[in-house]
Amino acid sequence: MRLRVTYHLACSSRLAAAKARDIAFEQTVELPADAMPPEVALRVAGRVESVDTLGRGRSRAVISFDPGAVCGDLPQLLNLLFGNISLKTGILIAGLEWPDELLTALRGPRLGIAGLRELTGARGRPLLCTALKPLGRSAPELAQLAYGFARGGIDLIKDDHSLADQTTAPFRERVERCQEAVARANGETGGNALYFPNVTSGPPEIVERAGAARRAGCRGVVVNALPAGLGAVGAIAAATGLAIMSHPSLAGAFFHPDHGIAPEVPEVLLGDLFRVAGSDAVIYPNVGGRFTFSEATCAAINTRLRGALGRVSPSFPVPAGGIDAARVPHWIEQYGADTIFLIGGSLYAQADPATAAERLVAAVRRHSHG
Amino acid sequence: MRLRVTYHLACSSRLAAAKARDIAFEQTVELPADAMPPEVALRVAGRVESVDTLGRGRSRAVISFDPGAVCGDLPQLLNLLFGNISLKTGILIAGLEWPDELLTALRGPRLGIAGLRELTGARGRPLLCTALKPLGRSAPELAQLAYGFARGGIDLIKDDHSLADQTTAPFRERVERCQEAVARANGETGGNALYFPNVTSGPPEIVERAGAARRAGCRGVVVNALPAGLGAVGAIAAATGLAIMSHPSLAGAFFHPDHGIAPEVPEVLLGDLFRVAGSDAVIYPNVGGRFTFSEATCAAINTRLRGALGRVSPSFPVPAGGIDAARVPHWIEQYGADTIFLIGGSLYAQADPATAAERLVAAVRRHSHG
Repeated sequence: MRLRVTYHLACSSRLAAAKARDIAFEQTVELPADAMPPEVALRVAGRVESVDTLGRGRSRAVISFDPGAVCGDLPQLLNLLFGNISLKTGILIAGLEWPDELLTALRGPRLGIAGLRELTGARGRPLLCTALKPLGRSAPELAQLAYGFARGGIDLIKDDHSLADQTTAPFRERVERCQEAVARANGETGGNALYFPNVTSGPPEIVERAGAARRAGCRGVVVNALPAGLGAVGAIAAATGLAIMSHPSLAGAFFHPDHGIAPEVPEVLLGDLFRVAGSDAVIYPNVGGRFTFSEATCAAINTRLRGALGRVSPSFPVPAGGIDAARVPHWIEQYGADTIFLIGGSLYAQADPATAAERLVAAVRRHSHG
Repeated sequence: MRLRVTYHLACSSRLAAAKARDIAFEQTVELPADAMPPEVALRVAGRVESVDTLGRGRSRAVISFDPGAVCGDLPQLLNLLFGNISLKTGILIAGLEWPDELLTALRGPRLGIAGLRELTGARGRPLLCTALKPLGRSAPELAQLAYGFARGGIDLIKDDHSLADQTTAPFRERVERCQEAVARANGETGGNALYFPNVTSGPPEIVERAGAARRAGCRGVVVNALPAGLGAVGAIAAATGLAIMSHPSLAGAFFHPDHGIAPEVPEVLLGDLFRVAGSDAVIYPNVGGRFTFSEATCAAINTRLRGALGRVSPSFPVPAGGIDAARVPHWIEQYGADTIFLIGGSLYAQADPATAAERLVAAVRRHSHG
């Protein structure tokens, strides 16, 4: 089977077939058909499977590609799907159909929902996550926050995605201190909170930071998958075995009504691509928060992260971006137990974030166990 | 000095100041002002320097950031400029002003224009570059093409940016064979053609491929900078000392009239960001080819890659994307000698690409030396 990509084309229906053929060649052989041996064109160029009009100057083209062109490489997958044609106009990715061969090569999450549940020991209920912030606090201050959240019963305590290696809280000091603080809290409560530091940086440093996190005792990390390069996700998992929580930083650059990834199907990026890249959990901006996703969009991302996809394990959806702690029971009703709720600002808005976390944890446990 | 970013905001002028303030906080502390100690907000949050109306529902805001927040890290720079706000709407990056501190930390090209001239021995004239293609040809076939182009006098022979590690021409075999073919041609002609393989992949593989290229005798490589993660560019340069030619794959995802990077200033991405990331040469789609950049856009990219930027070396602009070999003298007049012309398809459209390359080289030398 081939990798089938549905593109929506903004052009008159008269020109749609030519535009589809142009995409098929541009994204593979990058030459016109008459400038190469016909057998190469036939074997290697994308294949236009269908072109239909959608009316009002829009058409839908399905173009299929040889999965061998991807060679199991995420940057090359992005390049194949949208690399050169990003520099043209009126081309939207609206859907992907994956051949098993490619899914097997890309592999997806090592741990996924089941593995993360095992790491945290949380069964039959959603997980709670919060962020250590803001940028500018010292490593001891962040560790103090981490301790309070772990004492309060939060499952996953992650670095804010803007914490890199700033002098205010250098990466290695921060990881040592926060991990120690969470372990100490676990020792006192008998709990099993986990601390996930943000390891985002360039190669090979990102893999080295993940290694340092592992040596410090962390069981997972946060990656800004697009700034780092989507290939970093799987590379870290392969090198360290750590769980990966992917952050959607920059993802919105791709969502446009006419060119990029169709905004009504951000699950192509945050569902399919982030999942096959190896994310065990994917953060996305929940409806009703500080960002713009609709209810349908959020539901679609949840479905796409959890649903059947060859032998690729399901990933946890992590709605975030301004969820009110008081509304978490509502969101549990809405999204179900296989969800990680990331509550940040709403805890920090309270006088004591750790106490606010404790109240949140109690509310969720009450809700989940009736 | 601080990093100053000019954002264009699509909103009523009444709301522009609040939107600017929201960006300043969202991109740094990611908390509202009242949820953190005031001294942290003051020290760490972005600072709104000015807000002016541009009329017709658009405003211009200048927001400055502490360069220390970037910690010399390209992924974190992208995250700071547009990470979370990519998921909001109506926010365009329209300009950047760099503090010297940040430029020094990011460093930019190791070789730049002067260094690439030294590597190739080409002085006082533009350089000529072509691509080995298409995807689907075997390593010996690509090596045969490379040999012909090197014999013909092309300065830089690069892999097509879609050549990864496909079974048709696996990376290591391709690099060995193409580098050997170019060295053999140089031995015969006394020339100094260079072969730049495409090393794009995830970390740490991308650095390992660059190392393998270096050991094979290559002096530079091609990187799809955005799919790989912009941090890969400087990381490869630091690890190997190789020249880096960056390809703009995916860059078009950022260029939109209302949200992303203003399409009339793609030099923010392909000029400033690709240059400070460490690209010695930056490929972009020339006006009049298969893509959509205007003449003014191309001129702006050239200016931004070559112009003064603290102590950052100038980079070579590499116009590409459908330049007709016959029109190269025209483009030399237009763009000047500090340019690398990448001519691909136009050579492949001839019966014998190597002979076509020879004619092109002769025409350029005639033109450049009167």
